[in-house]
Amino acid sequence: MGEVKHLVVAKFKEGVAVEETLQGMAQLVSTMDMVKSFEWGTEMLGEEMLRQGFTHVFIMTFNNGEDLASYLTHPSHTNFIGTFQSALENALVFDFPSVVIKPPA
Amino acid sequence: MGEVKHLVVAKFKEGVAVEETLQGMAQLVSTMDMVKSFEWGTEMLGEEMLRQGFTHVFIMTFNNGEDLASYLTHPSHTNFIGTFQSALENALVFDFPSVVIKPPA
Repeated sequence: MGEVKHLVVAKFKEGVAVEETLQGMAQLVSTMDMVKSFEWGTEMLGEEMLRQGFTHVFIMTFNNGEDLASYLTHPSHTNFIGTFQSALENALVFDFPSVVIKPPA
Repeated sequence: MGEVKHLVVAKFKEGVAVEETLQGMAQLVSTMDMVKSFEWGTEMLGEEMLRQGFTHVFIMTFNNGEDLASYLTHPSHTNFIGTFQSALENALVFDFPSVVIKPPA
C-alpha cells in the first residue's frame, strides 16, 4: 500500500471564526511529523450547485496507514477535533489509499 | 496562483459498471496533457457515517486555472461527463486553487 489520503470537506457554521480554526489546523499539522503534506482550498471556482453548501476542502497525505492512524489518534489531533467539530455545520471525511493513475511529472 | 485542484466525491448508482467508468476516466486523463496528476480512492478506511453514502474520491491537479478550464471544456471531457453522470446517484465537485501549508518533502 502506498500513500494514504485524509480528505475533509466542510461547511462552517455562520459566525464562527473560520480564520482562527484554519490557523489552529496549520499549527497542529506543523507539529505532526507523520503528516507528509497538507493543502486546502476555499476560493471555489465552478458551479456552486455542485458543492451542495460545502465551502472548504482539506487534503492531508501520509506515507502509509500507520502514519494516518498515529495522526488520527494523537492527543493533539483528538483535542483539536473538538474545536473543529464545534465550528462545523456539516462535514464529510474520507480516508483512503491513493490509487495514482497519473503521477506528477 | 499556483496549482488548481479538481475534486469529485461520488456515489455510484447500484448496478452500474463502476469498473468500466473508472477505466474510461483513466483513458480520458491519459490523453489530456493538461492534467498534471490524477489519483483516486475507494478502499475507504475510517467511519462510514462520516462519508454520508459517498464511495469514491477523484483528485486531479492542474498547473493553473487555464489548464483546468481547458480540461473542463475539452470535447473529450464533456463527452465523458454524460456517461459519468448517468452512472452517479450523487456527486460533489470542487475546483479550487490549492493553498499548500505543508509541501511534500
